Amino acid sequence: MTGHFITFEGIDGSGKSTQARLLAEALKAEGRDVVATREPGGSPGAEEIRRLVLEGDPDRWSAETEILLFTAARRDHLERLIDPSLAAGKIVICDRFADSTRMYQGLRGPGLRKVVDDLHRLMIGREPDLTFIIDMDPTTGHARAKGRNGTEERFEDFGADLQVQMREGFLALAKAEPGRCVVIDGDGTPEAVAARVADVARDRLPA
Amino acid sequence: MTGHFITFEGIDGSGKSTQARLLAEALKAEGRDVVATREPGGSPGAEEIRRLVLEGDPDRWSAETEILLFTAARRDHLERLIDPSLAAGKIVICDRFADSTRMYQGLRGPGLRKVVDDLHRLMIGREPDLTFIIDMDPTTGHARAKGRNGTEERFEDFGADLQVQMREGFLALAKAEPGRCVVIDGDGTPEAVAARVADVARDRLPA
Repeated sequence: MTGHFITFEGIDGSGKSTQARLLAEALKAEGRDVVATREPGGSPGAEEIRRLVLEGDPDRWSAETEILLFTAARRDHLERLIDPSLAAGKIVICDRFADSTRMYQGLRGPGLRKVVDDLHRLMIGREPDLTFIIDMDPTTGHARAKGRNGTEERFEDFGADLQVQMREGFLALAKAEPGRCVVIDGDGTPEAVAARVADVARDRLPA
Repeated sequence: MTGHFITFEGIDGSGKSTQARLLAEALKAEGRDVVATREPGGSPGAEEIRRLVLEGDPDRWSAETEILLFTAARRDHLERLIDPSLAAGKIVICDRFADSTRMYQGLRGPGLRKVVDDLHRLMIGREPDLTFIIDMDPTTGHARAKGRNGTEERFEDFGADLQVQMREGFLALAKAEPGRCVVIDGDGTPEAVAARVADVARDRLPA
């Protein structure tokens, strides 16, 4: 018995965290064995690395060092939580995974996307079985993200231009990996979006 | 004008830190512009990563995560201190560098040396101009290391077998890279060993 690994991705304010939570709740209510987690972080060691990266001066780490630190956190998360849960046949739902590093760090400069991909191949390897990309107009998403009093300000304060680039990046990813990625329209109430997500999940999950 | 990058490596208790310090002092006394540093650490960010790796339960990180964290620390150290110092024409003397990761983490399991080397090629690239391998019988080295009240206990408490393996690994490295690595007999007083080191350094350094 192997589990199922589902991730949620999207630009800031797209509602991916809410949708990850709502899908976990819906599947639990159906009696499924669900582990809900998030990145960066998700295991005690990875949460410490998360703090090291996200706290302090935004310029304290170069993009390359940041990619290494996030990959270290992901490796720990994978070893300690994701892989054992999947091996036990559970459904793992993760708010952000490698695609976020591909966009957030990979778009910060020329050549960085290749660095992210090479490191992923070398040290992580695992891809989700199913990735929901919650699609959202960056203006709407940005307004939502700014309205929150989040702790991820440094990652959510890159401004509208980068959000537009990231949306394009996520949509290109979905096109390149149609077997893994499903784009979900993020407009509407959380419940309306959750219904779209749940429809796809029920189709894809083993009975 | 480009500088010169010198590293010191060897098993625990071989005296490499003392020798790194003595060479830095000798070259400074001759009026050379020397930056003395160490790994893991060497820059503020890298020192934070060092603490994250070295403190707490020795089993809290897998070898792979540890390799990623040390590579992140090395990248930061390189960007913030080593590369700018070399670009300014200085002599950089570093107590441990990538060869320590090749031995300490690379010998912890099958395939790990390749992981260290692949990551180094991808994210670090730089090799020292000159590496002193302070060679020492592991029994002597181990007794010395245990006699100290060091903070690196988790790395210095692997026991004699691993020290024997590491000595062999360092000597194999010296054989594989004779242009970069020079093996120095670590027996004798610190001053006697320092004289051997200084002879080689004077030969190799640009006038």
